[in-house]
Amino acid sequence: MTYCVGALVEEGIVFASDSRTAAGFDNIATFSKMNVFEIPGERLIVILSSGNLATTQGVITRLRMRARDDQESAVPDGILGLRRMYEAAYLVGNTLREVVGESQAVQQQGVDIGCHFIVGGQIGHQRPRLFHVYPEGNFIEATQDTNFFQIGEHKYGKPVLDRVVKWNTPLKHAAKAIIVSFDSTMRSNLMVGLPIDLLAYEKGAGRVTLRRRFDQGDAYFSQLSGIWSAGLRRAFGEVPEIDWGTKPGE
Amino acid sequence: MTYCVGALVEEGIVFASDSRTAAGFDNIATFSKMNVFEIPGERLIVILSSGNLATTQGVITRLRMRARDDQESAVPDGILGLRRMYEAAYLVGNTLREVVGESQAVQQQGVDIGCHFIVGGQIGHQRPRLFHVYPEGNFIEATQDTNFFQIGEHKYGKPVLDRVVKWNTPLKHAAKAIIVSFDSTMRSNLMVGLPIDLLAYEKGAGRVTLRRRFDQGDAYFSQLSGIWSAGLRRAFGEVPEIDWGTKPGE
Repeated sequence: MTYCVGALVEEGIVFASDSRTAAGFDNIATFSKMNVFEIPGERLIVILSSGNLATTQGVITRLRMRARDDQESAVPDGILGLRRMYEAAYLVGNTLREVVGESQAVQQQGVDIGCHFIVGGQIGHQRPRLFHVYPEGNFIEATQDTNFFQIGEHKYGKPVLDRVVKWNTPLKHAAKAIIVSFDSTMRSNLMVGLPIDLLAYEKGAGRVTLRRRFDQGDAYFSQLSGIWSAGLRRAFGEVPEIDWGTKPGE
Repeated sequence: MTYCVGALVEEGIVFASDSRTAAGFDNIATFSKMNVFEIPGERLIVILSSGNLATTQGVITRLRMRARDDQESAVPDGILGLRRMYEAAYLVGNTLREVVGESQAVQQQGVDIGCHFIVGGQIGHQRPRLFHVYPEGNFIEATQDTNFFQIGEHKYGKPVLDRVVKWNTPLKHAAKAIIVSFDSTMRSNLMVGLPIDLLAYEKGAGRVTLRRRFDQGDAYFSQLSGIWSAGLRRAFGEVPEIDWGTKPGE
């Protein structure tokens, strides 16, 4: 199972992903689901993925292979050469269709090879953009109203994001809310687990400036988890008792 | 969409259900999903349902029809005559299999006729018991460790239940937590909606003592929703800022 979030706010974009990959509870491995494509000062593109690992790795590997030519220069129609974020989302969708198209034999075995991608970043001085690419290769773009996407095990963590992550939420606050949403998700689904990769892209930077990995036993994550729990319990204590009205028959 | 919860605690059992039934966003109706079978002082059995309405109504209607004979006496092997809660869960599962078995033609149309039931209550002086009946008619029972079941749109509301609803949680606290979990669910999925039916069964009562319906505009529910939101925001504010460590390159 996977949980990934991308949130577009006025100050930039936050990306976060867990690293647990499982073919059942007894076959668990760690793979980062955060893929960063960077030309410092010129572009930063982050791709998060959920779903069939063979498919997602196939897509990412092809994007990387085709990004540079033999002289290590960026290929114009590769992920490092494209001129618009829209084209990057389109390329991910197309590459996904290509990989899925080659996997008919796997699908015939009844294996679900579908996957989702969150693609976001900034190229040059254009505005930062964020997309959700569907298993069929089509995609939607985040807006000021709908400014975050979740893929994978998304429901447990959605309530806190719904309350906190708005367009004008400061970048670092959005990052904190997303880590809280990971805490909620991990409590309710053991198949989502540490380490968590977190990247907060500061608009206009054109490079990675804020990146953090939360490993097993991470002191900050443990502290967050404890403080959030205590805060929730207190908030719950403040909710007034239910007014039950008159008992039936009274 | 539906959301129902049943929670077994030391002091009794809490049941809650929303009342929205939908065949798509444009065909929404209100049906109570809480069905109460009561012989005051002797037994209280509550059945909550999610899933295909034709199937769930079919099951509940047959249980009611077969509960009393022509003299209005409880039939020994009906829901009002059975001697154990285990038999009640078994009866619900069997009746479900019967209804599903008659609906082959519907299934062949590709319609999902599956449904889930939460069945709980107390008969005589036996201990209160709570069951989750699956679409196939088999079922599991709540324990002190796993003391609540959710059916329908269950994920959004699970984190708060996971934190608050334990075996030794007072009955009315568990009821409050469940209403908070409805608030979270309704914020994240518009297909779950008011009115909410809530019933807190007090162990040993053998009858309904605490029952409440939260309709549109209910003052308590609005207050709860506002106070819980404010509490969450404050709890979130107390979570320390992420320690980002050294920026890459520094």
